[in-house]
Amino acid sequence: MALTKPTVLSAAGTAVGLALVFNPQSQPIISCFGFSVLGAVATFHMIPKMGPLFIKVGLSGKDLLKKEKKVLPETMGAVVGLVYMFCLFFFIPFMFYQYLVTETSGAGNRDEGLEITVDPGDPGTIGRTLTKFPHNKLASYLSALLSLQSMFILGVADDLFDIRWRNKFFLPAIAAIPLMIVYYVDFGVTRIVIPHFIQPLFGNKSIDLGFLYYLYMAAVAIFCPNSINIYAGVNGLEVSQSLVIGLSILANDILYLARPHNLATESHLLSLYLVLPFLGVTCSLLYYNWWPAQAFVGDTYCYLAGMVYAVVGILGHFSKTILLFFLPQIFNFAYSVPQLFKIVECPRHRMPHFNEKTGLLEPSKAHFTKPPHPVVAFVLRTLGKLKLLGVYEEDGKLVAVSNMTLINLALVLGGPMREDKLTTVLLSLQLGVGLGALIARHTIATLVFGYDNI
Amino acid sequence: MALTKPTVLSAAGTAVGLALVFNPQSQPIISCFGFSVLGAVATFHMIPKMGPLFIKVGLSGKDLLKKEKKVLPETMGAVVGLVYMFCLFFFIPFMFYQYLVTETSGAGNRDEGLEITVDPGDPGTIGRTLTKFPHNKLASYLSALLSLQSMFILGVADDLFDIRWRNKFFLPAIAAIPLMIVYYVDFGVTRIVIPHFIQPLFGNKSIDLGFLYYLYMAAVAIFCPNSINIYAGVNGLEVSQSLVIGLSILANDILYLARPHNLATESHLLSLYLVLPFLGVTCSLLYYNWWPAQAFVGDTYCYLAGMVYAVVGILGHFSKTILLFFLPQIFNFAYSVPQLFKIVECPRHRMPHFNEKTGLLEPSKAHFTKPPHPVVAFVLRTLGKLKLLGVYEEDGKLVAVSNMTLINLALVLGGPMREDKLTTVLLSLQLGVGLGALIARHTIATLVFGYDNI
Repeated sequence: MALTKPTVLSAAGTAVGLALVFNPQSQPIISCFGFSVLGAVATFHMIPKMGPLFIKVGLSGKDLLKKEKKVLPETMGAVVGLVYMFCLFFFIPFMFYQYLVTETSGAGNRDEGLEITVDPGDPGTIGRTLTKFPHNKLASYLSALLSLQSMFILGVADDLFDIRWRNKFFLPAIAAIPLMIVYYVDFGVTRIVIPHFIQPLFGNKSIDLGFLYYLYMAAVAIFCPNSINIYAGVNGLEVSQSLVIGLSILANDILYLARPHNLATESHLLSLYLVLPFLGVTCSLLYYNWWPAQAFVGDTYCYLAGMVYAVVGILGHFSKTILLFFLPQIFNFAYSVPQLFKIVECPRHRMPHFNEKTGLLEPSKAHFTKPPHPVVAFVLRTLGKLKLLGVYEEDGKLVAVSNMTLINLALVLGGPMREDKLTTVLLSLQLGVGLGALIARHTIATLVFGYDNI
Repeated sequence: MALTKPTVLSAAGTAVGLALVFNPQSQPIISCFGFSVLGAVATFHMIPKMGPLFIKVGLSGKDLLKKEKKVLPETMGAVVGLVYMFCLFFFIPFMFYQYLVTETSGAGNRDEGLEITVDPGDPGTIGRTLTKFPHNKLASYLSALLSLQSMFILGVADDLFDIRWRNKFFLPAIAAIPLMIVYYVDFGVTRIVIPHFIQPLFGNKSIDLGFLYYLYMAAVAIFCPNSINIYAGVNGLEVSQSLVIGLSILANDILYLARPHNLATESHLLSLYLVLPFLGVTCSLLYYNWWPAQAFVGDTYCYLAGMVYAVVGILGHFSKTILLFFLPQIFNFAYSVPQLFKIVECPRHRMPHFNEKTGLLEPSKAHFTKPPHPVVAFVLRTLGKLKLLGVYEEDGKLVAVSNMTLINLALVLGGPMREDKLTTVLLSLQLGVGLGALIARHTIATLVFGYDNI
């Protein structure tokens, strides 16, 4: 992995990172930003070092959409994930700094935020509790870390063993158990507001989903990681879509935090604490994963990225807003359904086809081994006419369609293009959706639901 | 992996486990026992299934102390660890059942354990907090899970990549950050009681170690996992020593819990919740790892086992008592120091020597490539005379010593023996130490420190 060594830049990054972490005002938000910088620097250095070791133990893959078909290290998401988890661990004391520096010696007066517990039988263990310490916040944060780490483990296991769908499908919901307990205990809202125009149908401004709301959150935890994982296949796409979604969430958080005395402040702060360091490590990963890629990210990264966003959605109480940022992923999933459920043939890989002569990517095709059902054929032809699918016929017979992914659709619509241009096009779409979602959430939502919760 | 299939037993185990988990009294302690049973059954079934998959991805090792040198699956600790983590995740709602069933509808009176938070700008998000919910307990439990999962990841990484000592040595201390934060916030005791006979030296009954106590706890987190990992090399030893240590801790917990209205009840309950399921999965693992082993456990298991005990020691506020149960490991470490620090030659592996003719194990030797320093030679000869070391001379010159591990020492003292007998001997020692430690802790400690905290 040839690499220019901007050592000076790294040293500067480390210095700035440390200065921010140990900022004189002990502001958690600034420390958090510092950890993002440190995480970015660490990731930047570790990927080229770990790459060859990963190849050695068999975690590698061929870059199929290139002439050279180079073997690149896989599962670099494991490196990114570790650095990210380190940042989150080290951040704990900084996050709670103001509560931890409470004077602990002295009389142990409850008003001073201390409660002394004396065991009469044991003079040696005079315990004390910092009564003003926000245990609920600590529990939230730890539950987030636990869920993220669990998905990290699932990701690595999947990269190593290629686990079957039926065996892994529900695992993210189990990883989300700690989150849902915290949600239940500290918030417990299962009531959703319904749009103005259908309120008469329900005779109420909102409906209580009860237990179903927990199922919904579990579904979000399952959907987010998997949807990023299947919207992949060209250099840089997994990482850059995650970056844009993360930036959208960050912008949404900032829109809330900018307004003081808002009840949603705490939950958006937590979201920011989790998203900011993730964006840091993601930037460095993108450097190596962008076209032409020097490293692959593996399921590990996709799962982790999706789970970061699911976690902040659930703990930040905006698990519905989060889905707006996932619209391209939702479309990609819905568009894939005919192939995922085998209504249309589904080859093992659906990544675009690389044209060796032109060096450009073209839509890859699913060839029919037997003629499709007339209804299916009619629908496919209609989609073809709407330019929503590449349809290939021979002698008036349907022989193939383009594989049903958003990536191939972009090639159907935009014609053959080079891999990096394709990623850029898809990235622009993600960015547009993110901006649109932010505007929609904070303007149109007011009209539809009757209020905005900023 | 040939294996009789006691399907009936498993079905019965599952039924009993489920009945215990969903016990009508909703007693967390009974549910926890149920999860241990379920964990044992799941581990029992998964190891033979996962073994071949692990061998396929290269996680395998030769059983060198046998004639056949069979290739066995390695890192079965990963399977055990996953099942264990699943048990701990699923246990969360059962652990807090009594707090979660608090009525959530109604007026939201603080006295009823509810606090309603209304955002005036957002009628849709009327949150509520279960004020009586023990957030501190949840935070403790989650911090434990997080530390355990971190060590699990470190273990798997070590099994995959064989990480260098200097790169992994301090990692357990980082994994222990959440534990130490919880310790600081909810207990904060850094004062240790000193024995009667040296109290005059300090002019006090106890001394406050302050920050040093946190360093001590970090050291415990580093020591426990590593000490189990280096006290290994013969079939079943890692697992059976962990089983005995776990049983000792369980007995200690029960001694506390049997006395009602004790301030230490909560912390020993937590210890029990963590240790019990671990013992369940450990029993099943031992079935496959006992001589002649059908599977190896890997660093993953050793690290996880050590961390379970470090975690309960720290969160249960008995991190000093825990070291009593680790006396064989401490001796093994201290005895190994001359080789670990290269004062005496240290070969790559120090496991016993397998005598192909007799089928028995003999002490393995460290051969001197150059004559040892006279002082070192004198000390080694003295140890030899005390029967604490095998010393091998040729023409009056020291040519080799037995490798300095407790395993080899047992062979020096007891003569050659078969692998399973060796494990049994070492296991008996561990059991004796455990019993002795329990007696010492609850009787002699009263004499030395002037009180017992039961």
